Amino acid sequence: MKGVAILGSTGSIGRSALEVIRSNPGRFRVVALAAGDNTELLKEQAEEFKPDFVSVSGKEAAARLGKILKAPVGAGVEGAEEAARCKGADVVISAISGAAGLLPTLAAIRAGKAIALANKETLVLAGALVMEEARRHGARIIPVDSEHSAVFQSLAGHRKEDLKRVVLTASGGPFLNKPVQELDNVTPAEALKHPRWSMGRKISIDSATLMNKGLEVIEASHLFGLPGARISVVIHPQSVVHSMAEYVDGSIISQMSVPDMKGPIAYALSLPERIGGVTKPLELSGLRLDFMEPDLKMFPCLALAYSALQAGGTAPAALNAADEEAVAMFLNGRIPFTGIYRVISEVMGAFSPKPIKTIEDVLEADRIARLAAASVKALS
Amino acid sequence: MKGVAILGSTGSIGRSALEVIRSNPGRFRVVALAAGDNTELLKEQAEEFKPDFVSVSGKEAAARLGKILKAPVGAGVEGAEEAARCKGADVVISAISGAAGLLPTLAAIRAGKAIALANKETLVLAGALVMEEARRHGARIIPVDSEHSAVFQSLAGHRKEDLKRVVLTASGGPFLNKPVQELDNVTPAEALKHPRWSMGRKISIDSATLMNKGLEVIEASHLFGLPGARISVVIHPQSVVHSMAEYVDGSIISQMSVPDMKGPIAYALSLPERIGGVTKPLELSGLRLDFMEPDLKMFPCLALAYSALQAGGTAPAALNAADEEAVAMFLNGRIPFTGIYRVISEVMGAFSPKPIKTIEDVLEADRIARLAAASVKALS
Repeated sequence: MKGVAILGSTGSIGRSALEVIRSNPGRFRVVALAAGDNTELLKEQAEEFKPDFVSVSGKEAAARLGKILKAPVGAGVEGAEEAARCKGADVVISAISGAAGLLPTLAAIRAGKAIALANKETLVLAGALVMEEARRHGARIIPVDSEHSAVFQSLAGHRKEDLKRVVLTASGGPFLNKPVQELDNVTPAEALKHPRWSMGRKISIDSATLMNKGLEVIEASHLFGLPGARISVVIHPQSVVHSMAEYVDGSIISQMSVPDMKGPIAYALSLPERIGGVTKPLELSGLRLDFMEPDLKMFPCLALAYSALQAGGTAPAALNAADEEAVAMFLNGRIPFTGIYRVISEVMGAFSPKPIKTIEDVLEADRIARLAAASVKALS
Repeated sequence: MKGVAILGSTGSIGRSALEVIRSNPGRFRVVALAAGDNTELLKEQAEEFKPDFVSVSGKEAAARLGKILKAPVGAGVEGAEEAARCKGADVVISAISGAAGLLPTLAAIRAGKAIALANKETLVLAGALVMEEARRHGARIIPVDSEHSAVFQSLAGHRKEDLKRVVLTASGGPFLNKPVQELDNVTPAEALKHPRWSMGRKISIDSATLMNKGLEVIEASHLFGLPGARISVVIHPQSVVHSMAEYVDGSIISQMSVPDMKGPIAYALSLPERIGGVTKPLELSGLRLDFMEPDLKMFPCLALAYSALQAGGTAPAALNAADEEAVAMFLNGRIPFTGIYRVISEVMGAFSPKPIKTIEDVLEADRIARLAAASVKALS
């Protein structure tokens, strides 16, 4: 049985991972679970899957949980890191959302674990450093994002030397067909209604601005060792083709399926094998697939992400931090939807990227960008 | 340099193959060319590519050509077989159309050559026998049909054990959107106008009846070792997705490109490498792809092919022969378009398939079916 540790077990990816594990008894053993504040769900998960170690965000909650469960319970970043290093874990699912996922993922990498990477910030914030650590510790990084998993599956069996570019597909989010001038007035509730995927709040807003795709471009750059110029984005409203690899001869290999994160999660856990019946079969009859160029007037955040990737160093970390702050401001009703771009743009305009030598450089860029976002004039 | 022999060098596939070779000087050397009646073009090809051996259909033409060229010139099936066995050939492109391609392809297989297989009849007529000979002689069979090449490319890097089915795409031909009752009156000229691919006459008509797809199902069954039940056909009018492989987890890998036979030809010649710029890049922006179930009332020939595959033995050989005869009758104006199905259906209804022990069993079935087709009552 393959030992699995799940960082972020109560989130959307974590719950889907546990569904996959639950449906395949005898194949996986859950050895550690780390979560944030949802102690109640974590308790239920721990009671069902009986991991060796559990971690939760607060110390008090950890103490309370420790009395109920028989397993030892850690707390905070240290607890999540301990879960990541857990002895019986063959693969660690990194699914804590946001910048908070970076340190526990690094801990798993340094313990030489295979990483099923759903936390895109790990590579966005510190891609070069993380990939170098992974090489050094022999930790394999397997993408769980549906787009990167699709690229990964479209590269298998073909020569990297013959790759021309990868093409990430983007649904275009809920506002794809809205006139640009109406974007000022959309509400958080409208922005959260993603047409294809059911996801967390931050990533849903990022999908509406296409910043999510921008972060995925940065992630793909590190995962597949490609410059931004060899990573394209195409709008594909149906979210059936999850991404593609284009080769020098004009051939494009792509991966399709119904939009269901259990697919890439299961593949990351079981590859090179596949688990039967993980997602519903794709109904080909009557299927229509459209592809179009992203409109950068509609989605200016995408261009910001390409610029940050090009600038390199701590620029993507600053971009990500500014985006997290701006999205929170939008969700709190403090700025309009279009203010997200304006905040990030102003932060990045004033930010001087530095090379990343240690993780502290990343965390500093993160702090600077968050402070800058909070004081952006566009807010008033 | 890779030595290439081309069987059927003056046909559509043969000419495209020579274009690929011409565009990649220093990569390939043409060692043999075999053609049918187009002596004039064969002469030009021989003068340009300077093969060691040339073969043409008639003995007189061979004698004439021998005086002009410096290379030895063979004739008939024996000449094509000699071209297939040609000493310097690393790969033999089998692109003689129809049942006539079988014996020369078998000669190449028995000489242990890698076969770039564009002649689908080789596997339709005698699949089990041919695949067994290929195993025995260590001859690798690489598909050149765009559909089978797409499947081949979609299987690379993934476990055969995890394959659920392959899905062959079909453009649906020129009559896809015609009411069934109007099919009686379509002319050969209309039937020859394929919407996506420029091909020979026989295969163009087979595309209009979908018999071409039926023959490809039989071919795929042998190439990939799958029963008919694990090979599906889906109508895809744009001919961009050339075929797909669906895996047990719900994931579908597919290969796309502009419809241009130079793509699969070049891949078959150079794999696992790919040759840069073989086909134009596929323009994703504005691309629309549709998929639908084939209507068996519209395309009853498809069902005949599945039945012949299921019956096994010499049934597919009889099917192919009846189809060749019926298509010729239609092109000569002797039967209406819908008569193609009626002729084949009547021949197959009366045909008793036998197991294939030797190639003579196949040739006998071919003869019987052709005679039966000529005397079908539906003709009157």
